Amino acid sequence: MTRWRLIVEYDGGPFMGWQRQDHGPSVQQTLEEALRRMTGEQAVFTAAGRTDAGVHALAMSSHVDIGCELTRHRLREGLNALVRPSPISVLEVTQVADDWHARFSCVGRRYLYRILNRRAPPALDAGRVWHIAVPLDAETMREGAAHLVGRHDFTTFRSAQCQSDSPVKTLDRLEVSRIGEEIHVAAAARSFLHHQVRSMVGCLAMVGRGQWQVDDIRRALDARDRAALGFNAPPHGLYFVEAIYP
Amino acid sequence: MTRWRLIVEYDGGPFMGWQRQDHGPSVQQTLEEALRRMTGEQAVFTAAGRTDAGVHALAMSSHVDIGCELTRHRLREGLNALVRPSPISVLEVTQVADDWHARFSCVGRRYLYRILNRRAPPALDAGRVWHIAVPLDAETMREGAAHLVGRHDFTTFRSAQCQSDSPVKTLDRLEVSRIGEEIHVAAAARSFLHHQVRSMVGCLAMVGRGQWQVDDIRRALDARDRAALGFNAPPHGLYFVEAIYP
Repeated sequence: MTRWRLIVEYDGGPFMGWQRQDHGPSVQQTLEEALRRMTGEQAVFTAAGRTDAGVHALAMSSHVDIGCELTRHRLREGLNALVRPSPISVLEVTQVADDWHARFSCVGRRYLYRILNRRAPPALDAGRVWHIAVPLDAETMREGAAHLVGRHDFTTFRSAQCQSDSPVKTLDRLEVSRIGEEIHVAAAARSFLHHQVRSMVGCLAMVGRGQWQVDDIRRALDARDRAALGFNAPPHGLYFVEAIYP
Repeated sequence: MTRWRLIVEYDGGPFMGWQRQDHGPSVQQTLEEALRRMTGEQAVFTAAGRTDAGVHALAMSSHVDIGCELTRHRLREGLNALVRPSPISVLEVTQVADDWHARFSCVGRRYLYRILNRRAPPALDAGRVWHIAVPLDAETMREGAAHLVGRHDFTTFRSAQCQSDSPVKTLDRLEVSRIGEEIHVAAAARSFLHHQVRSMVGCLAMVGRGQWQVDDIRRALDARDRAALGFNAPPHGLYFVEAIYP
C-alpha cells in the first residue's frame, strides 16, 4: 500500500460537505467513486477538515492508501478526468509516509470568509460570497475580531453537533480587511470548533452593521453560551484555504 | 421620457451575448422583460459593447428611455429583483442627458482576458477562465502583445461577421501579466473589431506555448488575412471591464 497526499480544490455548492453523507453527494464520496472506477479499490479519503455543506476549498489536504502501482501524474489526471462534471480538482499529489495523516498530522488550518458589501447582488460571484447590502464598518469589525484572538472557551461559537473534546481553542489570527467591494475575514488556528468561523463572522457582521457594539463580542464570548450568539454566516462565503503540516 | 444609464455586471454563461437573439436568451432581452414587468413599457436597452455568447461583463454601460417616473433606487432594486434568477446585476443607475448614448458616446473600452495556467482544471473558476494546462511563457506573450499595440489594419483579427466600417483600429493597450496561477491580458481601445480580443489572445497563447514565435504575431498582422490567424480564445475567459465616457 502507498499513502498519497492530495491537495484538492472544490466548489462546495453541490455537496453536503467533504464527508460522506447518506442524504446527498459529498466531496469524499465523489473522489472515492472516481478512484474505484480507476483502480477497482474501495479506499477511504481522509481530509484535514470536514467542511460543511456549501463551504468551498481552495486547497484541502487529504490522504488515501492505494494498493495498485500508480504515478503521481496518473493519479492526479485520472481522478480529475473521472470526477467530472463535479466541481472538484486535484491540484497536487505526493507520496507520503505511512504514518502521515491529513487530519492528525495537521498543525494549522486557515480559512477565508468573503463578504460582498455593496448594494447590488453578485452576478459573477453568486454562490461565492455572502452578500450584505447595507454598508459595514470594517474598522469596528476589526476591533471586534481582536477580542476573539487568543486562547478562549469558544462554547458560544460552537454548534450543538460539535464533536471536539474541548471548547477551548487558540485562535491565532482573525483579520478583517476591505478589498474593493469585499470584506475578507482571514482566520487561522491549529483547529476550529464546528461552525466556529461562520459563527464568528456572523457576529462580526452584526458589529459591522452597528446592531452590536464591539464589546458585545467580548460579552458573547464570556457568556460561554450558544444562546448568546448572533447567527451563523452562510456557508457559501467560506473557503478552506490551507492545511499546514510540520 | 427620461434617459437612464445603467452599469451592469453579468455572467455570460447562460446568454447568447448582450444583444437580443432569436435562438436563445440574451442580457438585453432579460433586462427588457424585467423592465416591462416593472413599468409595462417596451423599452430598448443599448450597450457600449455587444459581447459574444459566453463573454462576461464586470461593468457594462447601457442606456434606456423610460416614460414613467422612477427613482434611481427603485429602478435598480426593481430590475435586480425581476431579473432573478438570471446572473445579471444592475450596479449603478444614473439619469443622463437625452443625447447621451451608451455606444456612440463611448470613447474607450477595456477588456480583461483570464487564463488559468496550471496542470489541474479549475473547480471554483470553471466557466470563468480559459484553462491551459501546459506552461505558458508570459514574457514572450508580452513581447508578442507589444507588436499589436498602436494603429493597425486588424483584418487578421476580425470575424467574418464583423460589421465595423473599417478594419483599422488603434489598440491603446495590450498588457500581459502573470498573477499567481493566472495570466491576465488587459486590452484597451476606443473600439474593437468583432472577435478582436479573443483572436489576439488566441495568438498570444500560441506564442506562450512556443508554437508560434514572437515574430509570427507581426507576420499574422501584416498578412491582413483571417487565414493567417491561429484561433480564437474561448469566450468564457473574457470580461468586458469598463466603458469610458468624456
